[in-house]
Amino acid sequence: MSDKPPADTPKAAKLGIIAGDGGLPRRLVDSCLAAGREVFVLALEGAAEPAAVEGVAYAWCRLGAAARGLALLRQNNVTDLVLAGGVRRPSLAMLRPDWRAAKFFARVGYKALGDDGLLSAVVSEFEREGFRVIGADELLAAGLAPEGPLGHHRPDAEALADIEHGQRIASALGSLDIGQAVVVQQGLVLGVEAIEGTDALLRRCADLRRDGPGGVLVKVEKPGQEQRADRPTIGPQTVALAAAAGLRGIAIEAGATIVLDREEVAHTADRAGLFVIGIRRR
Amino acid sequence: MSDKPPADTPKAAKLGIIAGDGGLPRRLVDSCLAAGREVFVLALEGAAEPAAVEGVAYAWCRLGAAARGLALLRQNNVTDLVLAGGVRRPSLAMLRPDWRAAKFFARVGYKALGDDGLLSAVVSEFEREGFRVIGADELLAAGLAPEGPLGHHRPDAEALADIEHGQRIASALGSLDIGQAVVVQQGLVLGVEAIEGTDALLRRCADLRRDGPGGVLVKVEKPGQEQRADRPTIGPQTVALAAAAGLRGIAIEAGATIVLDREEVAHTADRAGLFVIGIRRR
Repeated sequence: MSDKPPADTPKAAKLGIIAGDGGLPRRLVDSCLAAGREVFVLALEGAAEPAAVEGVAYAWCRLGAAARGLALLRQNNVTDLVLAGGVRRPSLAMLRPDWRAAKFFARVGYKALGDDGLLSAVVSEFEREGFRVIGADELLAAGLAPEGPLGHHRPDAEALADIEHGQRIASALGSLDIGQAVVVQQGLVLGVEAIEGTDALLRRCADLRRDGPGGVLVKVEKPGQEQRADRPTIGPQTVALAAAAGLRGIAIEAGATIVLDREEVAHTADRAGLFVIGIRRR
Repeated sequence: MSDKPPADTPKAAKLGIIAGDGGLPRRLVDSCLAAGREVFVLALEGAAEPAAVEGVAYAWCRLGAAARGLALLRQNNVTDLVLAGGVRRPSLAMLRPDWRAAKFFARVGYKALGDDGLLSAVVSEFEREGFRVIGADELLAAGLAPEGPLGHHRPDAEALADIEHGQRIASALGSLDIGQAVVVQQGLVLGVEAIEGTDALLRRCADLRRDGPGGVLVKVEKPGQEQRADRPTIGPQTVALAAAAGLRGIAIEAGATIVLDREEVAHTADRAGLFVIGIRRR
């Protein structure tokens, strides 16, 4: 990249980042800083990591405080918006919606919507308010998993059978809007992700593993998932937890899963003897 | 019941109980003792509770030692057989099948079968060997849940909505042969049972609960489930764990779920303020 954009390329607009949990928000901040793009982080209380807001303009905001959140985004001249990182979906009581959030929920329903339906509705709502909502993977170079192995190890025939079984089950769970991940060992479903998230699933499967060849984690995109929010994501921590749970590898959908720190993921997997492989969507 | 059966009623044949985990095997033993029926317990190592075999003829047997198990049943003149209690399905490596078990698995496959398919195959295999396989609920008076509440409490409209959602999801999970139970709170799927079992699901959901009205446990029979083995079962312990997890109640399918200690279940639920309700199968 040249130091100065050519005269006919408009400077990228300031990016607003609505930050949930995990490492993705910080990754986006760093990528903006490296590219010289202005950034404003709206950090969600109880979800975002403090590291996400270091060194940039930010404000903390309660999930239910929609009016304040929208006002903060406008005051900071945000037009382009990215939703990054997960949010443990609260009960309506815990959410304490302000008037603006209540208006939104009155229109779309809250309990009627699954996680994915709710996220789609949130994305549409930001668009109604005039923001341009962008997927995190569009902003991160080489963000989505390619097809094939990311490190040196590859699944053998037994692991491939577990992957296929896991992908079938994870897709079915996804269409029920339950979760994105499943752990399969020798054809047995050791665990299924619901609201607890992939990390908690992996921790629990450490106690459930059987003797013999270890299982695989399969993580897929929910059918019809809003691709600009809550895309399936893995990173070095996922690999480390999978190794600790005695798994042999991780399968993710190529072109549909965000891989944070791809080199570190490959390196961690190589050291632990795990495969990480991008598979075709079914 | 009279002390002596009438002359034209043949004495019930000796009952063989293949004992897995939980309280069901002992319940069957006690019911045989009370009825004066002879009993032999084949207690599965790593699964059956020692209490299951107290005071009756028994032998411990490894799950993979099929030849020994069959010989023990024959030596003890068992013709009627009941499979009671769950077994954590092992990997093939952990199972160490003997020649007889290996022959069985070679014919039916092992990895190809889900839990339920495997149980059906086991039941058929016992029938091929000349045993009559009976469902545990047939042997226990009033064993299956009736329709309607078991105690004093009843679900309100919100809990009914969670029950309906849970039943839909649990049925879908069952048809994938994953598990029988799901916990739903205010429309959110807090957790899904796989191989860990219902007790572990309830323990984990204690940490996942949201503010506001608590969730419900919904436990259903898998579609096409072999009804003589691994029927969905609840007991006082299920109620106690549900209460500890902050749930508001338990819904089970009427005519399809074994309720151990029905009075104690109702009493425990009443004291804890929980409902336990039998619902119609979908």
